[in-house]
Parts: sequence; C-alpha cells; structure tokens
Amino acid sequence: MKSKIITLITDFGLKDEYVGLMKGVMLDINPKLRIVDISHYVSPQDIIWASYLSYYSYKYFPKGSIHLAIVDPGVGSNRGIICIKVDGYIFICPDNGIITKVIEHKRPNEIHEVKNKEYFLKNTSNTFHGRDIFAPIAAHLSLGANCKDLGPKIKDVKKINLPRPKQSVKAIEGEVIHIDRFGNIITNIEENMIDKLKANSEFVTVKIKNKKIKGISNSYQDVRKGQFLAIIGSRGLLEISANNKNIADILSIQAKKKVRVFVNGK
Amino acid sequence: MKSKIITLITDFGLKDEYVGLMKGVMLDINPKLRIVDISHYVSPQDIIWASYLSYYSYKYFPKGSIHLAIVDPGVGSNRGIICIKVDGYIFICPDNGIITKVIEHKRPNEIHEVKNKEYFLKNTSNTFHGRDIFAPIAAHLSLGANCKDLGPKIKDVKKINLPRPKQSVKAIEGEVIHIDRFGNIITNIEENMIDKLKANSEFVTVKIKNKKIKGISNSYQDVRKGQFLAIIGSRGLLEISANNKNIADILSIQAKKKVRVFVNGK
Amino acid sequence: MKSKIITLITDFGLKDEYVGLMKGVMLDINPKLRIVDISHYVSPQDIIWASYLSYYSYKYFPKGSIHLAIVDPGVGSNRGIICIKVDGYIFICPDNGIITKVIEHKRPNEIHEVKNKEYFLKNTSNTFHGRDIFAPIAAHLSLGANCKDLGPKIKDVKKINLPRPKQSVKAIEGEVIHIDRFGNIITNIEENMIDKLKANSEFVTVKIKNKKIKGISNSYQDVRKGQFLAIIGSRGLLEISANNKNIADILSIQAKKKVRVFVNGK
Repeated sequence: MKSKIITLITDFGLKDEYVGLMKGVMLDINPKLRIVDISHYVSPQDIIWASYLSYYSYKYFPKGSIHLAIVDPGVGSNRGIICIKVDGYIFICPDNGIITKVIEHKRPNEIHEVKNKEYFLKNTSNTFHGRDIFAPIAAHLSLGANCKDLGPKIKDVKKINLPRPKQSVKAIEGEVIHIDRFGNIITNIEENMIDKLKANSEFVTVKIKNKKIKGISNSYQDVRKGQFLAIIGSRGLLEISANNKNIADILSIQAKKKVRVFVNGK
Repeated sequence: MKSKIITLITDFGLKDEYVGLMKGVMLDINPKLRIVDISHYVSPQDIIWASYLSYYSYKYFPKGSIHLAIVDPGVGSNRGIICIKVDGYIFICPDNGIITKVIEHKRPNEIHEVKNKEYFLKNTSNTFHGRDIFAPIAAHLSLGANCKDLGPKIKDVKKINLPRPKQSVKAIEGEVIHIDRFGNIITNIEENMIDKLKANSEFVTVKIKNKKIKGISNSYQDVRKGQFLAIIGSRGLLEISANNKNIADILSIQAKKKVRVFVNGK
Repeated sequence: MKSKIITLITDFGLKDEYVGLMKGVMLDINPKLRIVDISHYVSPQDIIWASYLSYYSYKYFPKGSIHLAIVDPGVGSNRGIICIKVDGYIFICPDNGIITKVIEHKRPNEIHEVKNKEYFLKNTSNTFHGRDIFAPIAAHLSLGANCKDLGPKIKDVKKINLPRPKQSVKAIEGEVIHIDRFGNIITNIEENMIDKLKANSEFVTVKIKNKKIKGISNSYQDVRKGQFLAIIGSRGLLEISANNKNIADILSIQAKKKVRVFVNGK
C-alpha cells in the first residue's frame, strides 16, 4: 500500500505560512508526492467538525491515500499522535477524538502510537507539530514506511461524543453540524432515517427555529428563487437550503441548532 | 489534444471539502493530472463574473488545457452540461451562460451536451455535480476521451446578457464588473475604446460617483500615495485605483456601478 | 542547482485569478514544476511582514528551491526586480526591501537585476508583473537558466528598517509583528534574547497592554482553557497566546503594539 497522495484537513487557515511549510517539509522528503487540501478552514479547535469532515471526505481519494487531520489544541502536551489503518487508507491525527466518526463506521485494522523520533524533523517545536512531526511522518509513509515503524501498537484511542439524532416512529430529532459557504444548513440526520420515517407516511415536515418546510425536495430548482427547501445533500445528510439564497444568514442559524423532522400532522 | 492540466473556477469557496473532493475524484482517475485553482471565490451564483473570469484567464494556460467553470444554481434540475472545444482549449460548464464571454470572442469548434453516464461517478447526488459529474468527465478527457464521447453534438448554448459599454464620439458609458482584493475597480471598458476616444482628443476624464479623474495613468506610482488614478489593468480593461489604498472601500463602490469616460470639457 | 519547486508569497489573495494565472504561465514553460503557496494573504502592500515571512519560511523547502516574494506597490514604476542567490536558494522579488530579513542573516552569493526581456511574457502589463515577469523568469530558472542570465550583477539592494528589539540586562523591548489565524500574537523577540535575560534571573514577566504574564510556558496546555500564556513559537520567536482562545481579539492587539519582557520585580 504505497501511496503518493496526502490530504490535509486542518484549522490552520491560509493567511499564515503553516500549510505551505508542511508542504515544503513533505516535498523535501518525497518530491513526487501529491498533496491535496481538503480544508484548512475548520474553526480553530473544532474537533467535532474535523471528525465529520474526515469521514465525509476520505473515500473520494484513491485507496492507499494518507489522510492528515490536524486540529490539535493539545499540541505540545502529552496527548498522543496516532496512525490508523482503516478501510484501505491511513489516517494520522492527534489522539483527541478526530478519528471518532471514521472508526464508528469502519473497524480499524491497526492502530499505532507515533513515537519514533527518527521520522520527525530534528528540532520539534512545542506549537507546530504539523510541520515538525505530522508532515515528515506522512511523507515517510508515502515512501513506504508503515504505521508499525512509527511506534507501538495500541488497542484504543480517545473518542468524542458526536451528536446523535434520536429517531422515533413518527419523528427524528437532530441538529445542525455545519453551515457551508452557500449558507446551506447541514444536519446530522441521515438519508436512511428519513427513509424509515417515510415508511410510515409519505409526507414529512422539517422544522428549524419555527420555520416549517414541507417535504424533501429533489433539487434546489423544485422551489422558486428565495424559497426554502429540505434536501438530501452530497454527504447523504439532510440539508436545509434556500434556492439561490443564504438561508443560514436569513434565519441566523449556527451549528448545534436543533432540527426536527416529523410525519405530517404530528 | 491530450492535456494534463485542468483548471477550476467555482463559487465553492475553500472552507468546505468541495474543491478537495473534486481533486480526489480527478486524481483517482488520472494520477498524473495537474490541477490549477483559478478562483473558488466567485460570489455564490454569480454567473456573470464567472463568465468574465473564464475569458480573462483561459489563454494563460497551455493549449489543450481543460477549463472547468462551475457556478451552477441549476444543479440537479434539467439544465444541461456542455463540453466546448474553442481556441485550442476544452471548456466544461453548466449550460447556463457561463461560456458567453469566451464564445462571443471566439467561435467554438464543437459543442457537445454531456449525457454519457459511463463517465460519471456511480452515484450522482443532486446537489454536487462538481464532484460527481464535472470532476470525473474532466479527468477522463485528460486521459484521452473526447467531447464527442460525452454526448451528442448540439448547435447552440444558453447565453447571458453581459453589460456592454456604449461608445459615442465623445464618451463611453460602462460599468463596474469586479472589485479585486486591493480594491481596484475593474470596469467593462476596453483599452481600444479608450484609444478611439483619444483619437478625438488627447485628454479624457473618468467619472465614477461624482469623482472625476483626469487622464489615464501608466502606473500606480504616477500619482502620490492615496491619490486616485485610472489605468489600463492586466485584463486590458479600464480600472480605477488609488496608489496604495483601497479605493472601492473609500468610495463604497460595488459591481454594476456606472462609469463614464469622456473627452475633456464634455 | 536545477530546482523544480517554486514557492509563492504574495498579497494577491485568492478571490481573483492572479495566483492561478501565474501558475498557468509557469506550467506552460515548465510542465514538471512543483508550485507551493506559502501565503497570498499578506496584507496589501505590507512589505515588512512579507520580509519576515520569507525569512521564516525559506529553509523548510529543499535546497535549490526558487522563492518568489511579490508584494509590489511600485509595480510598473522604475523600481527594479532582483534575483538573489543566498544560502543555497534563489529569491526573486521587487527591489523594495522584501529581501531585507533574509540577507541580514545570510550574506548573498550573487545579486542580479532582472532586465532581460527575453524571459518575460511578450506583452507585459504595468499592473501585474507577477504574471508577466516574475512567473516566466521563475519558470525559466527552474529549467536551468541562471540569475546571471537575467541581467547585470549589482552590488546592493534596497533595505527596509525592520523593528529591532532593544535588550538591556534586565528587560527586552520588542513589538508585535503578526497576528496569526488563531489570534496568537507573534513578537520580534527571539528565543536567545529571552535566554540572555534568564541568565540574570530565572523569573521573567511578559507585558502587553497592561496585561502581565509570568514565565514562559512550554505548551498551551500549561495553563487552563482561556488563560493567557507566553511561549516560544514555531519561528523561534516569543508569542503571546491564550489556551484555546483568540487573545488578539480579546485584547484588541494589532501589529506594532509594544511588548516588554523583564526580570521579575523590575
């Protein structure tokens, strides 16, 4: 499993040199590497969204790709760094729960704690392990090193509590997990939950902040410009949108807001 | 015409995983591809600016490059997707008018409607054709597929009305089409229109929002720091700027604002 | 010294096509090039931060890399463009002082003024030398051209005054040079200055805007969530941070704010 693609999810942003330096370090070790930015605009320290983002992204890359997910408020402390083989990919991240969503859905094949300083930069800072540890170990993995070369096998990793929707026969209670660039409101309610609800009744209503939206649309164009709609988005999750408008701004919605889907009349 | 460069213009922004996933899908199909971001910060649904952006960008890439322009409010509806060969390049975009500016200047060699699902991802969402349709077809084109493999030849495409300057003997009436990162005000008035005006009189004045600027400068340094100037910018268009300052902020100018250039004394 | 990596520091931002076009021009000349963005979000015309950014970034790339630093308020005027060989790298930048921090620390091996139009695009605008001059000359260098091919040897370049900390036996007076994405306050006070101070007394205090922080921490986790701390950051500079919070926002700190480090009780 020798990969030449490394992907990056971080909360580093793009105004500082942080992401660029990681790329410099990686290309110095493996000049043939392909590096793909997934997002550097995770909100600072937002491990929860980084966990979802990893899960909803990783499969779109070739098997064998190495996924770095670095949202790391514990950098420089005694938190661990882990290397996980799962579903044909390698993930490297701080042991702070980022990996939770991925391994909830797919059992890991191997987990190792990263300890072997041979693969780090010579001088490691206490504030930027992305450059000094994550980048060089990922580059070495891309050249053929294995997770097991990085440190001892471990049995378990830290997990975080991701908000779970509650499903009853006639309703689903979920919440907003992300607002995207267009103002689309992404919830944690999965398509198959909606399907179950619909087994009961064709007609469902989505409610957020006193706004009720009837039915699940097939495309933004199902409603007139500016009108609200509910739709299954590209992650297989329920989204609440407006055709051509930013609904999150209009309704002042942020992550964690409750969302309810219910069988009509209930 | 086998190209290894694909360029991207979208309104997806960089905070979400959207652009990264397109790259994952493309590299999975053609691992040797070069992908270049032109801009992902087109304002949501702004087909007009995306149309200009495509036109003012495409020639700076090697002949044979594949240009994706995805500003697509109609995603998931029955709007078409088109593959156009023009001027030695391939463009792929929704059939919503994005291509207008390019084909106004250069007659297309071939236009095909994208229909062949063989080149799509297996499960196509209704909200993210960038990942599910545009990315894979572009990658397949880069490997040697042709526009004609993607679907039937068509004769015409949708066009949008781009704002056209009005030129008389003594004046040009144009408008603002973009504000750049520096606050430079980019108008739709072309250099050759100014040249025509100057055939009448060496001395012209540029007017925007009651501000009058005399003459066309050769460089920002022609005026003192903070002073306003008019200049032919890097797109061959008239721009209104301030030396070292953000004039668009100072004057509160946005796209669509009228701009007038006139022979002095008129 | 034939390099295939070109890095970019600019104030162009990513919303316009500027950076993308530079990449198009470069790849047209050398299709095998690796281009790495360090930052395009230098504040418009901020030569001082661009100078620090170049210095704190360049060594993380393979020897032989070509570093472009384009913050260029004098574009189109008679300011020069320089090609400098230093410390095993090539830098190309406007002759406006951007290179100051790099050459203060390392004597250049060669400086040439860029004059040879053979390496420029055919039509050079007066507003975008990044695309028309910097990009093509960098690409030609990556193919084997030398600084000396670009123009005559020169002896000296323009320098800017970078703020220098003042060190006495019992205190250091420095200032803020950057606020990063997390709100970390980066000062111009170097680690070895703090070490010197500590030779006098183990206990030092950092002061900014009436806030006093005792001691230098080893990691963000040394203090409780939300608490302030001082730390040596990844550039080897003193930084002032809050664990998990944006201290620059909390204290309304911007670049140029004074920072004092002193031996306790003084």
